[in-house]
Amino acid sequence: MVKMIEEHEASADLRAVYDDIKAVRKTDWINNFWKALATHPPTLKRLWTNIKEVMAPGALDSLTKEMIYIAVSVTNNCPYCIASHTASARTKGLSEAQWAELVAVIGLANETNRLATAYGVPVDPQFIEGK
Amino acid sequence: MVKMIEEHEASADLRAVYDDIKAVRKTDWINNFWKALATHPPTLKRLWTNIKEVMAPGALDSLTKEMIYIAVSVTNNCPYCIASHTASARTKGLSEAQWAELVAVIGLANETNRLATAYGVPVDPQFIEGK
Amino acid sequence: MVKMIEEHEASADLRAVYDDIKAVRKTDWINNFWKALATHPPTLKRLWTNIKEVMAPGALDSLTKEMIYIAVSVTNNCPYCIASHTASARTKGLSEAQWAELVAVIGLANETNRLATAYGVPVDPQFIEGK
Amino acid sequence: MVKMIEEHEASADLRAVYDDIKAVRKTDWINNFWKALATHPPTLKRLWTNIKEVMAPGALDSLTKEMIYIAVSVTNNCPYCIASHTASARTKGLSEAQWAELVAVIGLANETNRLATAYGVPVDPQFIEGK
Amino acid sequence: MVKMIEEHEASADLRAVYDDIKAVRKTDWINNFWKALATHPPTLKRLWTNIKEVMAPGALDSLTKEMIYIAVSVTNNCPYCIASHTASARTKGLSEAQWAELVAVIGLANETNRLATAYGVPVDPQFIEGK
Amino acid sequence: MVKMIEEHEASADLRAVYDDIKAVRKTDWINNFWKALATHPPTLKRLWTNIKEVMAPGALDSLTKEMIYIAVSVTNNCPYCIASHTASARTKGLSEAQWAELVAVIGLANETNRLATAYGVPVDPQFIEGK
Repeated sequence: MVKMIEEHEASADLRAVYDDIKAVRKTDWINNFWKALATHPPTLKRLWTNIKEVMAPGALDSLTKEMIYIAVSVTNNCPYCIASHTASARTKGLSEAQWAELVAVIGLANETNRLATAYGVPVDPQFIEGK
Repeated sequence: MVKMIEEHEASADLRAVYDDIKAVRKTDWINNFWKALATHPPTLKRLWTNIKEVMAPGALDSLTKEMIYIAVSVTNNCPYCIASHTASARTKGLSEAQWAELVAVIGLANETNRLATAYGVPVDPQFIEGK
Repeated sequence: MVKMIEEHEASADLRAVYDDIKAVRKTDWINNFWKALATHPPTLKRLWTNIKEVMAPGALDSLTKEMIYIAVSVTNNCPYCIASHTASARTKGLSEAQWAELVAVIGLANETNRLATAYGVPVDPQFIEGK
Repeated sequence: MVKMIEEHEASADLRAVYDDIKAVRKTDWINNFWKALATHPPTLKRLWTNIKEVMAPGALDSLTKEMIYIAVSVTNNCPYCIASHTASARTKGLSEAQWAELVAVIGLANETNRLATAYGVPVDPQFIEGK
Repeated sequence: MVKMIEEHEASADLRAVYDDIKAVRKTDWINNFWKALATHPPTLKRLWTNIKEVMAPGALDSLTKEMIYIAVSVTNNCPYCIASHTASARTKGLSEAQWAELVAVIGLANETNRLATAYGVPVDPQFIEGK
Repeated sequence: MVKMIEEHEASADLRAVYDDIKAVRKTDWINNFWKALATHPPTLKRLWTNIKEVMAPGALDSLTKEMIYIAVSVTNNCPYCIASHTASARTKGLSEAQWAELVAVIGLANETNRLATAYGVPVDPQFIEGK
């Protein structure tokens, strides 16, 4: 029911984006997220440009970036995003033990976030940057 | 207006928890989160036990765990948690450049989570674990 | 597994609400949301009264109101709500191009919301109403 | 305590972005969001490129886009974003009555999202696109 | 900066709502939430009608309903709502010990919600109603 | 596709936790949540310890605690959690009428949370504890 543009249906313009995705990611297929965004080419191009820039290794390595993505996706409850970024993290070396610790931190952070909010805890002066 | 139990007001029992927090964290003061939880000692003890276990270095190092905590706290919009875990990450070596990249990933993940949801993208068979 | 009260099972009382829903919406069937709420008649009546009042064209037209509904439903990750309000927006003229732009704004707003939170940006005095 | 780069402190590179923001928005000042992002120039440039593209009038007019932004920002509880996009919407003609109806729809959508989730309402076949 | 309509400024029409709020709640003052909604009278009337109906004691008593309200408000991170419903719960007998246990459950539920999501736990057949 | 450790596959160590879960809950089977967490034994043990402590009857009875859990789970949109805690609440006596009122409060709280946020309502001095 979701419209998706398969590789063989793609215009030359879309095909160029698909090819760049495969080249940068060193894969030989395009996942559904991009095939769905392709129904609105400006969105496909814009998001791919963003992802390529933000997820490239820099001050943080790629695996760390994937774990941060998973932390957000679990907190927001996005099963597609959890599945795709976990698969991506696996190719970058995420072990079972790391995944389990990642999820444990995500879970606990969600708990203490609400405790801090419920108790209305004021920020300690020591935590204020620039002091 | 928030009730907090200062160190000098703490019973022997609470004091032991405060001392353990300071020893494990190698600090000489207790931040407001714990002083607020101390108004309900079972909650203070339970959360400290959890945090001590989950945040200890293991398959993931401490700085990575702090960054995951920040990712959840920003997504949940908890200023106290952002401030305290950023301060903690700083003591573990988080650089300005790393912080900026961390936040960029958090922001973009929040965007693509909603795109995946809005487009109703089905999970690719390749992303299903165990296949 | 979800209990729903079909039109032919409805008491006279529920039937009157169902008939009003069909009359106001100019449709000849009742969607599952209302059939589920009908298991608790005060909730059915209360929600229908609210929806009828809030979604009626006023200072904002109906299509704009449906788009706002979709923005909230995507942000909250409610697939039923996305499907039903997108269908409703289609009957009010939502084009493919409008849908794609709507989703692009929703996605980007979710990103910048987190950037503003992460950076702790203070509200500019110029943005404070009444000044 | 939040680091922000004022216009007079900006490098030539940042200045060019600030100037473009002011030109596109027809204002003579830069709001805090951009001055905070400027501490990480790639983020400033990337976000401004995105905002300029996504918020430009297209299939949807600018005021409608601002209202969608407000709907997301209220649902995510981002006071800065609510203030800045409400101010922006005002300059595009948002009336008091429109604002009140916008907020009424946002509130009600947040309610019915949870009712649909709690009751576990299945999507009606009629709402599935492509049927 | 928030516009609010004080009791002495209220039209006869608004005054009637204010008086009903005070009568039902057995208080002699109107809290800010209602004074802000009063800037759009249909919203004030609609919400008061809803609150009066939903929060009245029924199959659940008033204190239980207030605790549910607090659980939602903490999870959504709404300080005004936490403050007002905690104050209301106090007048209905909420003890310090009950408040602390309420918050402990809220926190833990937020944690296990994310664990269930992260692990992608399938619903047990035994939990499906109607079986 | 989700890995789960069945009772007959469990090590002596995990078996002890499973047996305690069944003893405390007076059931003769283990639900999927625990079988999934069992893939990381420290998480299984830690969460069971937390749940056993927090959900035990204390200043609040067990049914009230289950309703609070449902309120959080609906607000966070966790279908597994809604199903499991509703089933649990049923065994503790939750009636159909109570469930419907619980959901009505959850829904309305989600609405008024956003109204309070959108209007930027300041906390009344009367609601500030300690005054």
